[in-house]
Amino acid sequence: MENVFVIGVGLIGGSFALDIKKQNSECHIFGIDKNESHLDEAIGLGVIDEKSSFEELDKADLVIIAIPVDATLDVLPKVLDKINDNTIVFDVGSTKEDICLKVKSHPKRRNFLAAHPIAGTEFSGPKAALEGLYRNKTNIICEVEETAFKLQEKALKLFSELGMRIRYMNPKAHDKHIAYVSHLSHISSFMLGKTVIEKEKNERDIFDMAGSGFESTVRLAKSSPAMWTPIFQQNKTNVIETLDEYISNLKHFKQLMENGDFEAVYNEMETTNHIKDILNGIQ
Amino acid sequence: MENVFVIGVGLIGGSFALDIKKQNSECHIFGIDKNESHLDEAIGLGVIDEKSSFEELDKADLVIIAIPVDATLDVLPKVLDKINDNTIVFDVGSTKEDICLKVKSHPKRRNFLAAHPIAGTEFSGPKAALEGLYRNKTNIICEVEETAFKLQEKALKLFSELGMRIRYMNPKAHDKHIAYVSHLSHISSFMLGKTVIEKEKNERDIFDMAGSGFESTVRLAKSSPAMWTPIFQQNKTNVIETLDEYISNLKHFKQLMENGDFEAVYNEMETTNHIKDILNGIQ
Repeated sequence: MENVFVIGVGLIGGSFALDIKKQNSECHIFGIDKNESHLDEAIGLGVIDEKSSFEELDKADLVIIAIPVDATLDVLPKVLDKINDNTIVFDVGSTKEDICLKVKSHPKRRNFLAAHPIAGTEFSGPKAALEGLYRNKTNIICEVEETAFKLQEKALKLFSELGMRIRYMNPKAHDKHIAYVSHLSHISSFMLGKTVIEKEKNERDIFDMAGSGFESTVRLAKSSPAMWTPIFQQNKTNVIETLDEYISNLKHFKQLMENGDFEAVYNEMETTNHIKDILNGIQ
Repeated sequence: MENVFVIGVGLIGGSFALDIKKQNSECHIFGIDKNESHLDEAIGLGVIDEKSSFEELDKADLVIIAIPVDATLDVLPKVLDKINDNTIVFDVGSTKEDICLKVKSHPKRRNFLAAHPIAGTEFSGPKAALEGLYRNKTNIICEVEETAFKLQEKALKLFSELGMRIRYMNPKAHDKHIAYVSHLSHISSFMLGKTVIEKEKNERDIFDMAGSGFESTVRLAKSSPAMWTPIFQQNKTNVIETLDEYISNLKHFKQLMENGDFEAVYNEMETTNHIKDILNGIQ
């Protein structure tokens, strides 16, 4: 019988638990979470089978670390200290460089696989866990060569059963590119939400005017600050670079409008329009 | 038999045509469009019954003007010149001040209703027309008092049959608020798309890393530049104001990151998080 430990029973960890249980009903799912009420909720929802603790990690076959990336820096070495030689541990964090560095010289480094499943919603907690969340999603694996063959194989088999496609990258490249295609989107969304709320705070009715376009661009502003703050902190240099470029593009667009150069405004949009083709390639 | 003329047989006009036909099968739908191939396509798709021209507008009972807002400024007075006394004409443009001003003194002003249905998708053309697009959507009516009672009534009955809820505003307030809840979203999305495409142009594979979050924030960057350029032009002052505030919020966020003040970064997101409640109110 496989013992699966999920540390952090929220959206990401909980969704792994649901799919693993569905694939292998004989698995036993243990949950660890610093939020006791989340554990109770997860049991009630059938997301995990029972509560557990770090002391029991020696019986784990698989450990999934699905907590904010600052907590992962602290928890991952402690998990590696506890597990036995045949346990595979993977994280799911949206930053990879700091995490890989942190365990670079850990004696159990080969039991760890650095992963980033590109999946999620703007919600959080055990209630947000979804069956099938990972189907057709990309999972980025970093420094795969640092993980023991047999354990790589075990994790990759699981990802494949869950329907994920795998991409291999080095942690530096991961953090740089993910800043553009994910982290910047979150900041643009939060700041868009802020701008509109500030302006319209005394006129709540105004949101009646908002359509699906507004909803789509501010959706990510519902995301969890506890999850995102440490991501921005760990990926500070890359994220600041993306913000510089984004702000500079917005200023340029504004300048074109101020100059009354609407032919150029048209061209700005026309050029970006081919994002259609790019996005069609995403899924 | 009701003769309905739809000027501009794209997403918005075509969707009106489909729903009107469904509600009242005895209606005859005439299409006018400067793009001849769109007219053929619209006939083929059953969006309109036949092609028509401005010369035939004297037999119209209802005229819907669903073309870019710069073209509306030109076309609306010509339509009003042609119609008879019992015809109701409405537009659907995303700006209202210039359009209302343009026909302020037209002898047929009372045959016109200034409308802005908050509905649409990022696609365009007759193929983008959707049945039921307007169900549960907001329709903002401006200067309702300038429209003849009986004709107001006729238009409102139609909007109600299509499932829309009505909000009344003056054109100035409409243009100011819609800049925040719609126009700014489009620019933020276009510039986000631009920023990422510029950076990643030589690494198309990178878009494999993009998830639903990125897709959601750049969805509007697929929108039609021909539709949006004249909107930004007509609403220039308000849109520039929203851009100033948005850019200033982004710069502030970047400054907090540069200062390493991640407690403040957290608070920025936490404060904006209540957009959840606001958005839940939208639909």
